[in-house]
Formats: sequence, C-alpha cells, structure tokens
Amino acid sequence: MKNIIYGINPLIEAIRSNKNIDKIFFLKGNKQLSRSYKELIKFSKNKNKYIPVHIVSKQNFSFIKEKNHQGVFAIISPIRIFQIKNLLPVLCKKKNPIVIILDRITDVKNFGAIVRTSVCAGVDAVILPNKNTVKIGPDSIKTSSGALFHIPICKEKNIENTINLLIKYGFKIFSATEKSNLDWNNANFLGPIVLILGNEKNGIYTKYLKMSDYTIKIPSFKNNFLSLNVSVACGIILYEILRQRNFFP
Amino acid sequence: MKNIIYGINPLIEAIRSNKNIDKIFFLKGNKQLSRSYKELIKFSKNKNKYIPVHIVSKQNFSFIKEKNHQGVFAIISPIRIFQIKNLLPVLCKKKNPIVIILDRITDVKNFGAIVRTSVCAGVDAVILPNKNTVKIGPDSIKTSSGALFHIPICKEKNIENTINLLIKYGFKIFSATEKSNLDWNNANFLGPIVLILGNEKNGIYTKYLKMSDYTIKIPSFKNNFLSLNVSVACGIILYEILRQRNFFP
Repeated sequence: MKNIIYGINPLIEAIRSNKNIDKIFFLKGNKQLSRSYKELIKFSKNKNKYIPVHIVSKQNFSFIKEKNHQGVFAIISPIRIFQIKNLLPVLCKKKNPIVIILDRITDVKNFGAIVRTSVCAGVDAVILPNKNTVKIGPDSIKTSSGALFHIPICKEKNIENTINLLIKYGFKIFSATEKSNLDWNNANFLGPIVLILGNEKNGIYTKYLKMSDYTIKIPSFKNNFLSLNVSVACGIILYEILRQRNFFP
Repeated sequence: MKNIIYGINPLIEAIRSNKNIDKIFFLKGNKQLSRSYKELIKFSKNKNKYIPVHIVSKQNFSFIKEKNHQGVFAIISPIRIFQIKNLLPVLCKKKNPIVIILDRITDVKNFGAIVRTSVCAGVDAVILPNKNTVKIGPDSIKTSSGALFHIPICKEKNIENTINLLIKYGFKIFSATEKSNLDWNNANFLGPIVLILGNEKNGIYTKYLKMSDYTIKIPSFKNNFLSLNVSVACGIILYEILRQRNFFP
C-alpha cells in the first residue's frame, strides 16, 4: 500500500510536489470524475509529465473500499523520472556527456543490465519513450541490481523531438544496428554522444536511423543470422567509448 | 514425450550411441533396480559421462504407466555435450583458439546471452562443471536464441583438472574478477586463451584464480559497489580479444 495515493487533493499535491506518478485510476461513472480528471490532467500537463490515466470499474477499488478515495487512486513510482530538456543545461557543462536512448526495449532483464552497465560506465542519462517500453518498478530495480537509483531516467513523449533537441545541444548521434558498415571500434567517440539501442526483435525505428550521424555495428564472426543481445552490445560499445577516452567517461 | 526414453535396454543403447542423457529416473523399490542401475552406471562411466541418477516414487512414472518402462526412464537433452579432452586435438590446430569456462553460472538468461555472444565472437568451446550450474534445456536454448546448437558445450567433473589440461595444451588462463589490477584492454590476448567467468554472486573460486596466468577487471567508473552483469562483462572481454586480433577469432 505504500506506493498508493488516493483522493483528489492528495493526488494533486503529489503531482505539485513532483512525486513520480506511474498511473492514475479513475472510477468509472464517478460524479467527481470530470472535475478531478480535468484538474489532474491540467497539473500533469503543467509539469510536462506524461501520466497514463485509466478509467476502471468499482472492483479495482475494492482494496481501498473502506477509504475515502473519492473515485481516484494512483501508483507512485519509486524511481524519479526526469525530462531530458531539464537535464541538458547541466549535462552540457560536462566534457564528454553520454546519453542513451532505448527505443522500445521491452525485456526487464535487458533494461536492468543496460542501466547497471550505464552506471558502471558513467553514462549521464537513459531516455525511454512513454509507450511501448519496459515498466519501471520493483522488477527493473531488481534486475539493475539497484543501479536504477543511481542514474537519471527520462521518459519522453516524442523521441524524434528528443533526438533533434540533443543534436541542437551538440550531441553526435550513434545508432547500433547490424545494417551498418562501420565497426564499433572504428567510430570516433569523442565529444558529447548519444547512443541509440533498439527493440530486441525489430531494432531501431528507421526514422531514428536516418536522423543518426553514424550507424555502428558489432560484427558477428560466425553464423550471420545471430546477433548480440542488446545489453551485451550496449556494454561492448560503452566500454569502447571509455577505452577511446582513456577511461574518463 | 519425444525427449523421454524408458526401459532398461533402450536406455543402455541410448548411452552406447552417445545420446545426451540429462537425467535417469529409477523406480523406488523396483526389483530390477540393482541390475539395471549397475549396468547403466557402468555404461555412463565407460563413456566418461556424468549422468545424474534419481530414485523416485511410482507417482513420477504415472505419465508412462501404460508403457513397459521396467522401472526406469530418462530425459534426453537436445544439446550434445562434449568433453574438452576430445576437442583439444582439433582445437590446437587452430591459430588462436578461445575457450570459456563458466564457474557456477546459474542464471539461464546470463548463460543464454554468454553462449550467444560466444558464437558471435567465434569462441571454440564453452565448459561447465557437472554440478552447481545452469540447466541445459529448452530454456537455455531459448535464451541463447538457438546459439546453443552452434558451439560445443562441455561438461567436466573436475574443473581444476580441466584448467591444468588446458595449460598443458598451451592455453593462457584469464580470470575476470574485480579484485584484479589489470584492466581488460591492457591484457595481451594473443595465442590460445581460456576465459574464466564466475558465479553471479560469488565470482570465481579462489583456487581457479590462483591457477590463472592473469586476472583482469573491467573497472566501474561510478559507484564502486556496482559491477557489470557477467554476460555483459563476457561480451566486453571477447570483443576486446577480437579487436586485438583484428577481428579474426
């Protein structure tokens, strides 16, 4: 129960104080629905946050039926979620910032291993899309060995805009894909870098590949039908970046 | 049912013809037990194989109760298991063979990712101990994306003897451990190489570390309490080996 908030005003206060609200649940047909819904949406928009809203039946409220829930409750995420635009002014003061974009990574073990490697390699932020992505919660905290608490995680509504913003801030965009001709260790990883890693099955969206300055690959020496696991590929590329920088992230 | 063999003689024939028997189950109190048990043990010993034997109750036989099982059935592994001593004469004709020893890796996703990376990197064999290790079966085939079919997997009763045998054949032994002072990319990976990777929680047995020519580490740049996932570490080291060899495994 400690990750639950219920009642209209407590929820509005939670948003006001930047609590990380994972999801909001409204009672279907609730009279207070329209006013509270609008107010909550307004607050979440003010903060430039994306909070998924669900309209659910009375059954879903049974666990707090004795409480004065006013037809609304929310799940609070234990991980603080950022927006990259708020981090960039600070990041850009660093010499060689590294940002990772995970394009629809869905496996929680892959996500955990990537976050763990990112913390070890001194990555500055990991960006996820709002939708079609892994869930951030107890499972991903576990699979990351707790590393999720040690790196800013951003969620962005529009990854295309995010890439453009990062380009504007002087980042070079590298996308990892087998369809590249440039081996990972022949890329020049100096300066501010964005590394895009793609979905376990389908890879990176073509439009993101087209926006990239470079595509890079890690060749497979046997069995060309096989490719590396995305978290393994992430580790190989990040530690090549560090090697090129003499280990200063 | 297609991975099951039952009956004494069929099982003996299966062992004779080098089928990969995962486990043998004997019916508790079965009159035929002692003779068949002895014969099966004898055959498994002849082949230098290690086949775990379980004595189980009638309930475990209910799925073949209509069959003439003679109080014994076995599970056949879809993966062929080798012994390293039989592979070494061929391996040693290669210029720079790479062998991996997994010291008590227990997570099936880690094992799968390591096998997948090993195939991509052209590793020649992966060695596991007989006990305290991941199970080789449908789950590990899945997590390896089928890579398990493309690399010889060895199971060895005594890893200490295995390391000594590999040393005798001219392999240099590298153990990956945080307790090293040698960074992974400063090691010299030319020539025949064994890479030892350790248990997810406890790392590599001290006695294997002592037998190693080199210990190597992949440093963590932030949060020293954190280390890399073993499959990620494996990928980083293997691709550094390939980089040093100009990509010829």
